[in-house]
Amino acid sequence: MSPLALKDAQHIVLQHAVALGAESIDLLQALGRVLAQDIRSNRDHPPYAVSAMDGYAVRAADLSAVPVQMPVVADIKAGELPSIILGAGQCARIMTGAKIPDGADAVIRVEDTQASASHRVQINVSAQAGKDIRQRGENLRTGEIVLAAGSEITPGALGILAMVKCARVQVRQRPRVAILSSGDELEGLHDAFDANKIPDANSYALMAQVQALGIQPTLLGIARDDPAELRGMLALGLQHDVLLVSGGTSVGVHDFVRPTLEALGVQMHFWRVQMRPGHPAAFGTTASGKVFCLPGNPVASMVSFEQLVAPALRRMMGHARLYRRTLPARLTQSLPHRAGNLEFVRVVLGRDEQGYLATPTGSQSSGVLLSMARADGLLVVPNKSEGLAAGDSATVQLLDGTAFQEYSGIEEQ
Amino acid sequence: MSPLALKDAQHIVLQHAVALGAESIDLLQALGRVLAQDIRSNRDHPPYAVSAMDGYAVRAADLSAVPVQMPVVADIKAGELPSIILGAGQCARIMTGAKIPDGADAVIRVEDTQASASHRVQINVSAQAGKDIRQRGENLRTGEIVLAAGSEITPGALGILAMVKCARVQVRQRPRVAILSSGDELEGLHDAFDANKIPDANSYALMAQVQALGIQPTLLGIARDDPAELRGMLALGLQHDVLLVSGGTSVGVHDFVRPTLEALGVQMHFWRVQMRPGHPAAFGTTASGKVFCLPGNPVASMVSFEQLVAPALRRMMGHARLYRRTLPARLTQSLPHRAGNLEFVRVVLGRDEQGYLATPTGSQSSGVLLSMARADGLLVVPNKSEGLAAGDSATVQLLDGTAFQEYSGIEEQ
Repeated sequence: MSPLALKDAQHIVLQHAVALGAESIDLLQALGRVLAQDIRSNRDHPPYAVSAMDGYAVRAADLSAVPVQMPVVADIKAGELPSIILGAGQCARIMTGAKIPDGADAVIRVEDTQASASHRVQINVSAQAGKDIRQRGENLRTGEIVLAAGSEITPGALGILAMVKCARVQVRQRPRVAILSSGDELEGLHDAFDANKIPDANSYALMAQVQALGIQPTLLGIARDDPAELRGMLALGLQHDVLLVSGGTSVGVHDFVRPTLEALGVQMHFWRVQMRPGHPAAFGTTASGKVFCLPGNPVASMVSFEQLVAPALRRMMGHARLYRRTLPARLTQSLPHRAGNLEFVRVVLGRDEQGYLATPTGSQSSGVLLSMARADGLLVVPNKSEGLAAGDSATVQLLDGTAFQEYSGIEEQ
Repeated sequence: MSPLALKDAQHIVLQHAVALGAESIDLLQALGRVLAQDIRSNRDHPPYAVSAMDGYAVRAADLSAVPVQMPVVADIKAGELPSIILGAGQCARIMTGAKIPDGADAVIRVEDTQASASHRVQINVSAQAGKDIRQRGENLRTGEIVLAAGSEITPGALGILAMVKCARVQVRQRPRVAILSSGDELEGLHDAFDANKIPDANSYALMAQVQALGIQPTLLGIARDDPAELRGMLALGLQHDVLLVSGGTSVGVHDFVRPTLEALGVQMHFWRVQMRPGHPAAFGTTASGKVFCLPGNPVASMVSFEQLVAPALRRMMGHARLYRRTLPARLTQSLPHRAGNLEFVRVVLGRDEQGYLATPTGSQSSGVLLSMARADGLLVVPNKSEGLAAGDSATVQLLDGTAFQEYSGIEEQ
């Protein structure tokens, strides 16, 4: 099977990734989850017309000539239900969020008034009816769908859920993900030090990538190059919704993984993807599970996770947004490239007045995990590119950890 | 005290926000935390020269004329320590990550070869010495600092920590954050329904904003407008590193919060910020803690959290990147604006070939939390702006939940 274009590989993976079932969880745990139900408002909000400001509730018609002195006939705070009816020429002190008394139809902000004698105030500006009043149901109406199934529960959405009193909420389940490294050369995190071994970084980098999506994976450890051990650990992994295996996926004669997966009933859909790093990335399915075979090189493993695994896990969680955010950036240096491979170059982002700048992190050898740890994003060099020049614009896929920047970026003036 | 410019308010807040002490945690829990120690490599990685590809280890000098047939004298897989010394005219089958045998100085990829008779192979291309070999210590050298104190533990960094066998790691502590809502008009999430009450959305939206920073806050609930109750709850909140109080911060006569805080020994540093929404945002400190008084309107509360609280919490956690990512976007419609206030307009982001497009989410009334739940970001309208026209470029501060997009954004060709 010849290597697939990345978008074709993504298409195959996503065809096999469907949103999981629903579960009911506590609102306190709901951030980042995806709604499996439409949410309707259980109330009008605000429940009555309220003041949008601290000030004085008035009858707009009384303010044709200003300034004007008025008696303050009540003092209404939020949460009170005022019993008065405002008469002509009267006003009431009112707090933000407090109920507008009957008779009043506008609010004058406190800064547009002057307190005078006790129980009197001077109003300095006129107003149209409705000024600085939030009407009943302006935010939410009883029965209205306020959040549709499929919405991600952002902080704002979580606030809405609290507003309509959803203390528990139906959300999409998260996939159960297992992670397995393979290879005799690997030394586990808790194994004794052996200078000739290669430490198992993949299990932990992949774990962190899965955690960054809001899923706690199961680490199965390291399968040695022993057919029975490998078979047992793969079988265990396949009991999860998604199994990630790194290493052991090359075309070499020592490759146990592929035949063992096939012997376990896995149907392999592709075995190579036209991208670097991440070329030897494979995908298979059973009736109930999915398996991704990722390269043994940690950078290649991480890059293929972002391109292939993350969108699938996001879809299984019910998300509509599957792909990491991209933005355009200009290269600060030239990038040689041999046409024929889509390439992801690890870059750090800077900024000037024209926009974002991308600088490669140094060695792009796929073994150099340090370059990934330092990267803000992956710069995309298209298949057909014969190389990019300094100043060329390119697409950068943002990595986790880039939601924040060092400068505020806000020009107040 | 007149309202401060946002950057001045941020400056004051950050002057009082210092990185907290260190704690030792398990690597499995370390994602997103900030290193409190320099991390040095405990090994050379790779520990010896290894093959970067599946192929054949050769002596480059033997390939002056190609194609050339060679005997395959060994088959070396990752994790083995080969005992052979490669002689002139010989090659060895080698796997990615396997040790280069003595005598060999290059690797020819399997796709540039042709298997012929048993134990013989035809090499089709020549190579320079060093081709497709990763040298000992190319990734990490023993004793080298691989991650400096202050680094955020991204997935790549977590992989590095596993690579140098840091099963436990010293990181900055996370601040203890308490959240309190205030006001007689509020109905708690678990209170009986009362159509005349205002549901407490702020506690939960703020909780989610704090959670999104990787901190689990303590919800103190609702303080009623009773001086003794409010004082007790504020005193409890001040025992945390950071207390967030929403509501009750207006200039109105019913405002108990400010005098109560002052009576509890809080020194207030500012009480208003020149931005909308979020104007009535205040900040104070005690010897050991910080308190932010945020507006009662949920949108205003969320916006002021992002501008003032999030950078402080990030700095306390040890982060260098304090501010949410910004990017330029063009407005799809005009935006009226009255000069004098920095304004944050909730927008959804779209995209065309020229870049990002920003469309306001509808009502910008600060009570309309729905607009915040739907927003991808906050578009910045500077103080002095007299309004923006459709097509104008503006800065958008990305909100949580925007790390992913619906399209891959990657053009492979």
